[in-house]
Formats: sequence, C-alpha cells, structure tokens
Amino acid sequence: MSVSASAPGKAILIGEHFVVENQPAIAIAINLRAHVTARESKNDKILIFSKNLGIKDYFSEGNINIKSPLYPIYYAAKEALKSLNIETSGLEIIIDSEIPPSAGMGSSAAVSVATIGAILKIYRRELNKEKISKIAYKAEEIVHGKPSGIDNTISTYGGSIIFRKSEGFLKLISNFSDVKVILADSEISRNTGNLVRKVLRLKNKYERIFDPLYYSAGHLAIEAAKAIENMDFERLGELMNINHGLLSAIGVSNRKLEELVYVARENGALGAKITGAGGGGFIVALCYKKDYENVFKALKKVSNRVFVCDISDKGII
Amino acid sequence: MSVSASAPGKAILIGEHFVVENQPAIAIAINLRAHVTARESKNDKILIFSKNLGIKDYFSEGNINIKSPLYPIYYAAKEALKSLNIETSGLEIIIDSEIPPSAGMGSSAAVSVATIGAILKIYRRELNKEKISKIAYKAEEIVHGKPSGIDNTISTYGGSIIFRKSEGFLKLISNFSDVKVILADSEISRNTGNLVRKVLRLKNKYERIFDPLYYSAGHLAIEAAKAIENMDFERLGELMNINHGLLSAIGVSNRKLEELVYVARENGALGAKITGAGGGGFIVALCYKKDYENVFKALKKVSNRVFVCDISDKGII
Repeated sequence: MSVSASAPGKAILIGEHFVVENQPAIAIAINLRAHVTARESKNDKILIFSKNLGIKDYFSEGNINIKSPLYPIYYAAKEALKSLNIETSGLEIIIDSEIPPSAGMGSSAAVSVATIGAILKIYRRELNKEKISKIAYKAEEIVHGKPSGIDNTISTYGGSIIFRKSEGFLKLISNFSDVKVILADSEISRNTGNLVRKVLRLKNKYERIFDPLYYSAGHLAIEAAKAIENMDFERLGELMNINHGLLSAIGVSNRKLEELVYVARENGALGAKITGAGGGGFIVALCYKKDYENVFKALKKVSNRVFVCDISDKGII
Repeated sequence: MSVSASAPGKAILIGEHFVVENQPAIAIAINLRAHVTARESKNDKILIFSKNLGIKDYFSEGNINIKSPLYPIYYAAKEALKSLNIETSGLEIIIDSEIPPSAGMGSSAAVSVATIGAILKIYRRELNKEKISKIAYKAEEIVHGKPSGIDNTISTYGGSIIFRKSEGFLKLISNFSDVKVILADSEISRNTGNLVRKVLRLKNKYERIFDPLYYSAGHLAIEAAKAIENMDFERLGELMNINHGLLSAIGVSNRKLEELVYVARENGALGAKITGAGGGGFIVALCYKKDYENVFKALKKVSNRVFVCDISDKGII
C-alpha cells in the first residue's frame, strides 16, 4: 500500500543574505507543495524517482552514489528510518513537486520533509516536528553546504516564521486570507553559494558600511513580524520594499529583477522584492487579494513563469 | 563694457538625502557651466535675462517681484553689491547656462555664483570664496527652502569635496584625468522638496531601520573620499553602487532610474547611481575614459539626454 505526504515551498519576505550573519529573517510557506508517495518494496533497495527531474536512482548499502541529485532524499529517508529504529527495508519513493527547483523556493527542503512524512506514514509512526526539521536540515547540508535552516523549518511548520540562526524560530500568529503572494521568475539562473560568498567578500571589504546594513535588516525583520501579527500588510509591503533596497546595496540585484519589482509595485503590489539569493531567480510581490489580478497580468508580460500563491498554514501533512 | 564669469554645475557621487540629516556627502564639479555676462546700465534697475528660461525681468527698489523665477539671482546680485558696499546701480545680467535646470545638477547655485563673479568683475573687486559661497547659499534658500549648502560650495570651489552640514567641507586632492562622468536623464520630473519630505517621513516611521542606513551612508562618504584621494576609481564605483541601493531602500528609485543604472553598469561603468533627489531626474555613471563611449552609446538608446562630463577643478572664474 502506498502512502502520500506533502510539504510546502517557501518565500523569504525579509532578510535573505542577512540571515547568514545571524540577523533575523521572515519566511512564509506557500501553497506550492512537494508531494511524495512511498511504499515498501520486497528488495532491500531504496528506489527514488523524481518526476520533475525525470531521474530515477537506486540506493542500497553497497551502492550509494553520493553524487546523484537524489542522494539528499535518500539521506533524509535513511535518517528518518534510523530515528525510528527501523532496519533498512526496501522502499519506493516517488517525488512530484509543484515547487520550481533552484528558484529560492525551498524545493529541496520540501522534498526532504515530505519524504520523511511519507516514511512516517508507511510505518504508522510519529516524530515531532523539531526532529523532522532537523533531519531535513541534514539533507539540506548536502544540497547547500551551509544552509541557514530556514527552509526546512518553514516547510515543516508552515505559516509564517521569524527565524534566527542562533535562536531558532517563532511561528507568527496571523491571518493571511486578505493577501496573495506572487512569485515571478527573472529567468536568469544563478548559483546561491557563489552569491552568498560574493556578498560576504563585499561585507569583509567594506565592514563599516555593511555592518549597519545588517543591523537595519535585523530591525526590518522584527518590524515585519509585528506587521504580520497586526495584519498590517501595507506596512509589511513597505518593509519588503526597504529590504529590496538593501539587497540592491549588497550587490545581488540586476536589471531584470528591478524590472519585475517595479512592474509589481506600479500595478498595485503592497511591496515587491528579490526573494532568495538574488542575481537571478524570483521576485516576490505581496498584494491584497482584490489587486492581485492586475499585478499578475502585468508580471506575465515581462516573465514567463509567474505563480500566484496563498500563504499556507499547512506544514508537513 | 560687459564682463563674464562662470561657475560649474555638480553631481553628487555619494550621500544625497543622507546629507540632510548631517551625514557627510561627496560632490564633484562638472564641466557644464553657468555663464553670466553683466554690465552697468544708466538707469537704476537691475535687468536679468535668462536665455535658458526665455524670461526677462526688471527689478528696482520699488518693484521687486519675489515670485519671479529670476528673483534669487536678483537677490544674489543685491547681496554681492551690499558686501562690496556699492550703492545700488543699474545692471544688466544675462544668463546662459549649459547646466540643465531642475536636474539635481546645481544649476541655480551655479547661476548665483556666476552672477556674483560677474559683479565682482564689473567693479574690479574681490570677495573670498567663503563669502561668495555664503551669498549663493542665501539665494539657494529662496529656491530650495532648506538647502544643504553642498551646491553653492562645490560650484564656488570646483573639484571634488566631502561636505557635512555641521562641519563644512574639505576639498579632496585627486586627479580625475582617467575618468569621465556620464549623466543620463530619466525624463521623469519630480519635486526635490517633496522627495526630501517623503524620505524624512519614512525615516520617522521606521527610525530603527533607517538610523543604521544613515550611518552606513556616512561611512560610504568617508570611504569614497579616501578612494578619490587614492585615485582608486574602481573602489569609488563600487561605493556608488552600494549608495544606489540605499537610495532604493529609502524609496526614491523607480523603474526608469533602475534601467539607466543597470544599462550603465552592464556596459562598462565602474559604478552608477541615482544622483540628486531621485524619483526621476538623472543618474550618474563613473567610467574609465577608455570605456565611456560604450556606456554613452548604451545610455543614448534609453535616454534622450545624456551628458558626458569631465570632473572639473575650476570653480568660479
């Protein structure tokens, strides 16, 4: 019998890059989800098939290809089994994700979280969310090197969180039914790790200029958390716009990203900014529900991939 | 016999808006100049004719139209005469300026400074530069309400300066023969006073977010002054780019300005940013001389008014 689990992708509303240096950041879960279907199989292999990547791979004790793009998923599955004290058994894991990969939307973390969820369902067992998030974090380390931990956290818990590396996270209490988030693709690919290193190099070079920017970003996240809890989305949008300027200052914007950001703002978004590492990837725009169609239509004219999302309170299910 | 004097326009390389709250800023004089020709006349009126505005106006003791756009020039002329202890005599003042007005290039200050220069030449008298700049500042108060004082200073002294409201200015020692500055028009008009007020409102609303940005801008100006004195123009360009991000953060950028900035950077500029109040007006790009033609050509495709300038050491002459 096969079972299914899913976990959400995310967008960072405030604080990417600054979170790396232990400033707080704000992330939201969106209603684009990674779905994982799994079942036990008779052999002792773990088969992983990603419909999105069109890749299938087998892993077994003697045959672990750590260079496979599916290895982090295998790793998450194995770690989940270990936590449950389950001897390695054969598994078939099928991944079907609505979250665009390499887009700063936490696709890899969501797949790991959903994989763990599916394994729990197979064996009718439970792990607390803290443990699930921790296992997914380890898989993220394989994908990203030194992840902040924000992706696995938001994908596990859903909703919106304020997150700080040294202190963990707090789930924010709010109601997002009046707003939509729109994600638009710059269609420029980039390497997150390289961008993080580039920013840190610049921070090192201009310490006295960058340090205050990081403090400013930290206050932005704190103000944004309050705005979310007060459901003051106009204020949240304004804070996103300020944050975008800081991302421009640290050198991760470009002409296309600016075009997307200003098209969104000019057409009724409450705020719009780069989301994720920048240099390419997506922008996120926050809109009142009544205005989102205008923003969507305008963005569609300048981007081939535009997602209209709800902020979803559902984490792993 | 008529005499002529001239004074340069300016561009702010670092620190507009932040200078209002007493952070240091960097300005340069450019080789676009306001030219004033003047001579004594037989009557007791002061005639001012602006070729650029196509406006002519008479001022006399009993007939002072303070609403005339030429009134600040009359005021500068009168103050200069007063400083020289010259009884009001008749004057004809003809203004012919290469500096585009309302462009953040210090056109009004340059006209005032050149007017004072022409009056000094008529009477073969001298005033020190401090005094000239001070008179021009008073005329600027009529034009701008609460000017920072940066425009009259750079127009009087030329070259490049680091300026701080509470401390005055320091002329920087450098050699700009390897670089050009390119100014490109967004062709969007805006009101400087309104933009300054908008920024200060936002600063007031988000004090803990904005205060560090202002500190950051202050350090930018100090680093930029060092870069100028070391003739490290790559560093100066990088600092201009960071500054542009701060201007985006405080809400004075827009889609057209971003387009101009990134077109300049993508085509070889060392740095590019909004110059002046933003919301419209011009961007400034710094280029090595060997690269400026590329930048110029690319900007010409997206702007109808592009000026290639040298940084000019000549102030009032």
